[in-house]
Amino acid sequence: MKNKLPIGILGATGMVGQRYIQLLEDHPWFEIAWLAASDRSSGKPYGEAVKWRLETPLPERIAKMVVSPADPTGAPKVIFASIDASIARELEPKFAAAGCAVLSNSSAFRMTPNVPLVIPEVNAEHLPLIEEQPWRKESGGYLVTNPNCSTIGLVIALKPLAERFGIEQIFATTMQAISGAGYPGVASMDIVGNVVPYIGGEEEKMEAETLKLLGSLQGGEVTPLAARMSAHCNRVAVVDGHTECVSVKFSKKVSEAEILAAWAEFNPLKGRDLPMAPAQPIEWAPQPDRPQPRLDRNRGKGMGVTVGRLRPCNLLDWKFVLLSHNTVRGAAGATILNAELLSSLGKL
Amino acid sequence: MKNKLPIGILGATGMVGQRYIQLLEDHPWFEIAWLAASDRSSGKPYGEAVKWRLETPLPERIAKMVVSPADPTGAPKVIFASIDASIARELEPKFAAAGCAVLSNSSAFRMTPNVPLVIPEVNAEHLPLIEEQPWRKESGGYLVTNPNCSTIGLVIALKPLAERFGIEQIFATTMQAISGAGYPGVASMDIVGNVVPYIGGEEEKMEAETLKLLGSLQGGEVTPLAARMSAHCNRVAVVDGHTECVSVKFSKKVSEAEILAAWAEFNPLKGRDLPMAPAQPIEWAPQPDRPQPRLDRNRGKGMGVTVGRLRPCNLLDWKFVLLSHNTVRGAAGATILNAELLSSLGKL
Amino acid sequence: MKNKLPIGILGATGMVGQRYIQLLEDHPWFEIAWLAASDRSSGKPYGEAVKWRLETPLPERIAKMVVSPADPTGAPKVIFASIDASIARELEPKFAAAGCAVLSNSSAFRMTPNVPLVIPEVNAEHLPLIEEQPWRKESGGYLVTNPNCSTIGLVIALKPLAERFGIEQIFATTMQAISGAGYPGVASMDIVGNVVPYIGGEEEKMEAETLKLLGSLQGGEVTPLAARMSAHCNRVAVVDGHTECVSVKFSKKVSEAEILAAWAEFNPLKGRDLPMAPAQPIEWAPQPDRPQPRLDRNRGKGMGVTVGRLRPCNLLDWKFVLLSHNTVRGAAGATILNAELLSSLGKL
Amino acid sequence: MKNKLPIGILGATGMVGQRYIQLLEDHPWFEIAWLAASDRSSGKPYGEAVKWRLETPLPERIAKMVVSPADPTGAPKVIFASIDASIARELEPKFAAAGCAVLSNSSAFRMTPNVPLVIPEVNAEHLPLIEEQPWRKESGGYLVTNPNCSTIGLVIALKPLAERFGIEQIFATTMQAISGAGYPGVASMDIVGNVVPYIGGEEEKMEAETLKLLGSLQGGEVTPLAARMSAHCNRVAVVDGHTECVSVKFSKKVSEAEILAAWAEFNPLKGRDLPMAPAQPIEWAPQPDRPQPRLDRNRGKGMGVTVGRLRPCNLLDWKFVLLSHNTVRGAAGATILNAELLSSLGKL
Repeated sequence: MKNKLPIGILGATGMVGQRYIQLLEDHPWFEIAWLAASDRSSGKPYGEAVKWRLETPLPERIAKMVVSPADPTGAPKVIFASIDASIARELEPKFAAAGCAVLSNSSAFRMTPNVPLVIPEVNAEHLPLIEEQPWRKESGGYLVTNPNCSTIGLVIALKPLAERFGIEQIFATTMQAISGAGYPGVASMDIVGNVVPYIGGEEEKMEAETLKLLGSLQGGEVTPLAARMSAHCNRVAVVDGHTECVSVKFSKKVSEAEILAAWAEFNPLKGRDLPMAPAQPIEWAPQPDRPQPRLDRNRGKGMGVTVGRLRPCNLLDWKFVLLSHNTVRGAAGATILNAELLSSLGKL
Repeated sequence: MKNKLPIGILGATGMVGQRYIQLLEDHPWFEIAWLAASDRSSGKPYGEAVKWRLETPLPERIAKMVVSPADPTGAPKVIFASIDASIARELEPKFAAAGCAVLSNSSAFRMTPNVPLVIPEVNAEHLPLIEEQPWRKESGGYLVTNPNCSTIGLVIALKPLAERFGIEQIFATTMQAISGAGYPGVASMDIVGNVVPYIGGEEEKMEAETLKLLGSLQGGEVTPLAARMSAHCNRVAVVDGHTECVSVKFSKKVSEAEILAAWAEFNPLKGRDLPMAPAQPIEWAPQPDRPQPRLDRNRGKGMGVTVGRLRPCNLLDWKFVLLSHNTVRGAAGATILNAELLSSLGKL
Repeated sequence: MKNKLPIGILGATGMVGQRYIQLLEDHPWFEIAWLAASDRSSGKPYGEAVKWRLETPLPERIAKMVVSPADPTGAPKVIFASIDASIARELEPKFAAAGCAVLSNSSAFRMTPNVPLVIPEVNAEHLPLIEEQPWRKESGGYLVTNPNCSTIGLVIALKPLAERFGIEQIFATTMQAISGAGYPGVASMDIVGNVVPYIGGEEEKMEAETLKLLGSLQGGEVTPLAARMSAHCNRVAVVDGHTECVSVKFSKKVSEAEILAAWAEFNPLKGRDLPMAPAQPIEWAPQPDRPQPRLDRNRGKGMGVTVGRLRPCNLLDWKFVLLSHNTVRGAAGATILNAELLSSLGKL
Repeated sequence: MKNKLPIGILGATGMVGQRYIQLLEDHPWFEIAWLAASDRSSGKPYGEAVKWRLETPLPERIAKMVVSPADPTGAPKVIFASIDASIARELEPKFAAAGCAVLSNSSAFRMTPNVPLVIPEVNAEHLPLIEEQPWRKESGGYLVTNPNCSTIGLVIALKPLAERFGIEQIFATTMQAISGAGYPGVASMDIVGNVVPYIGGEEEKMEAETLKLLGSLQGGEVTPLAARMSAHCNRVAVVDGHTECVSVKFSKKVSEAEILAAWAEFNPLKGRDLPMAPAQPIEWAPQPDRPQPRLDRNRGKGMGVTVGRLRPCNLLDWKFVLLSHNTVRGAAGATILNAELLSSLGKL
């Protein structure tokens, strides 16, 4: 254990914080060394501070760790952060300024020009943006973000299509899981036997992040993909797993076989041996009624994106359904995979 | 009671059959006089044959009625039908040939050229198509259909927009209730904590029916609306109420206020005093997170369509969310309202 | 309208507060004249202050009423209260001291010796306890409570059995709806696809209230029923309707027919014409798999208690299942029915 | 792989059949060699015959296996069976007569005097009953059963208490998961937002099996425990995991600490190294609101029983809540653990 890289978690008691802990329990490279949360929790043993909501038990070592205040003093040099945007806006720069590599799931800085918004399989080449950050020059610290939970599955499924065929228009309607709203999050009175066709700020995030992620880094900044996108975001009574109905218009005529091949052959991390990376980033479900959140969210240990129902669209070119695990692939796992990539690049 | 028009129900034990019974219990014009179902049920008291699934009790008079075989002999002259398409294809013509007015919720003949597919608020002017039917000439019988449950709310919301602004493109993603699949219908193992992104044949029905309903009757046939439409249909864990995310491209530039006015002013049945007609066919929900099935499905006694979240669409012109009760507005209530319209026109 | 009795609602924005408003909308005797809620809401139009969660629309007249501070000044003389016990402990005596008849759904004073805990069908004879209250003598004001939502259905079902056969032991396991916890109440992450086998304080309330309700008023105080009771309380993913599995030991040997007759013949309010009173307080469901919350909670306009599955118990004598609507029969409707009874007795 | 024992599965396409396949995928001792199902499936590749409903993917090797007819010819000598009781009654004896060790999850023969009903941690000493079976003498074949899914968690939790304190009375109310009813099983219209307070035959099975399992083998037959038990069985909207509210009366006065110690120290299989056996058969959950199915069902790889909320009972002595995974501990895992025990005893 002594050779593992110590990791700090900012926002450790939240739903995503809990996933960091679960996913890092047996991680071969990283070890949790520090947990921070709000003032309400700080000073308590983590096991008392957290309302653990995951299906696997809270590791005993972690339960006994005392929650630290959310301050860089005493924190390790690598921080995984998943906190409210309003708090992140203030705290994350403090940690970067203190020399930390801050890998953030928060939304506060995703669209900031000198902050890379990265999915390792999609746009690892945006990472050099960190060199544009003032903290990097001053203290060595920097900030790297991963996308919103509803964006990430979509962009992974679109990336090989964008590369091979060009993408001009994107339609996406989401049916998002309740875990995406944290805890207590969505009131049961709002979702049992119901649908809530609204998630504050989500459509705007999805539309903006998707184009940045598929954009290109040129001259120290990212030019977003020159495509148009429209999102409809909904909450449904599912615990984990976001389902998305997608229609796409390509820059050229594309066959079903070409799309399936683009998905099947997409594996840009192959050979890098990143522990969180799924063997097959995009899995095709041949059944007519798949993917489904309950049945497909755990593919690739929760890091795979499942696609299915590819068929022609009367308005754009093709339509399909995709699914990804929102708190693994779409949040905690995304941060960890970013850290693994940075580590393999010698940046941690 | 003696002056009420006797009605027969074909498919009386199904979910829609049960709704006919519930909605007709105190109907001022119609009275249930005959119930038919499959051979398995025929000969039994209805109360024994049915697995009643509605939240109001089965009326005692109906419970005691003996289920008849599905044959026109002894049936009244007005038949409400909601049966599987494969059976409807055979049975509904038999009843029409025997002189019955068959008002059908089945999908078998909706797209048949000489069969009107009608929503009273939308295209009452298609009803003269019945005069093209051979049965009409021979026995006086005829066949009128109402649309699929996912089509009807959409078309009602689109109709005033099509009239005022012209519609060129329509995107719709549905989140449909389980009652739409009948009983036993959707297995609980498929839908508890889950989404099923597929309903067999539903997307094709929605796309075709929408354009026929918004089309125009000319020279004894309906020319469908010259628009393009793409549907994504999903099943969610909601008992009643279909939610739909819609984007629309108009033939001209349209403002938010114009759309709201078109919806608010749409009431083509006003003054006709049809008992099932809602006072306000399209209700606007001003809250940012509405409509929702649990909270809005019963507006207008289940016959209203609720719209909300009107906002610009990056791809088409405007997008919004709509909701309608799938077994009332979208099935049983639709048949009954068609019957009321025909009755008010002297055709029953 | 001018002859209706003006009613004030304390706790008007809560789930039970909303039910008061819904149930009183067309009440023939009472009219809402005053709404009070927490400081956060006071001064706002009710339509802005409330997050309305019911399936029928918020009445427009009520939406426009301005929420008052929770103070007796300016309040009408009849108050329906449903507020947190900690606040009720302070506020309800203030209103009683100011001369108000306070009809409370709160738990704060249910077990107080000089406060009647009443279900009109069960123990109307406990009402004279109000004469023991100091406020009654000083200002005319008094306090009457109705039981907890899980207690009330149980006690109604037990009352005719206790009268005819004597009850010595009671076992009850509840499966309670989420609306009983208010709004936001139960987090969706806790209940979607889950059961929570714990509701704080509920088992103790059920056990104590049941024996007080079935007790007898003697010499200015209630002697609880000399029976033993054990409750297991659980929360399940149901919106409205508490289901309870009950086993009972009687003081003598009792047949199935005798129990069914006791239930069928129980109607102590018959002839009193109280508007909220159900025609048949206890309805028997003969099907083997009933009662069920979705199908039976609205019997008797939500004021009926449905019983089913009566069968011998290997430990006590008989066991059965009961169901009642927790926010109608179990809360708002209970308060209103208490008010109706008091009004018919000339006490309002 | 060549040294693993070949296993046949009877009822391979059902929910429990699927769990056998999932749990045996990497089993160190056993290997699936033969799959049988109804005539409808026989002759097809398993991947086509099954509607796979588990959260982990169907193993490819199994997907390609051709489903055999349900006949002993060509079947391996060890059969795991989970089929309808009516079919089991006919088929299981055929396999036993053909010399197979039939380890059955079916209910057909559980209460048959010469058939052991076994939970390895509870009553391994009942296994010699197989020597009373005629097949054993004739062909070497025999039949061993495991209990119903609602019985098994209860009996494991009761066993150490029965041993140390004696048990005289048992009350149990279950809230059972939908997977226990197979696929399609419970209709979604019956359980979404609802409770079904009835499972046909379940209460009778629980009551009888519990007493047989806790009974003693004497003179070639099992004398059931001389206790009385009453069960109330309910279905709730949970995918996996049965929750049970239990009250118990002991033969002597028992303290909380004694009960907790009895549970903590219970581990009769310790040291036997059976692969499916949980490290800790009974886990105590100290939180006030646990166990919960979503959070606790996977303890001990789904083979652990979680207990919580131990508190005095007003009627019997103590009450508590227990939870176990109904298709792992309560079905497929139970059969496999029985096979492991028999194998370790040299009986396979």
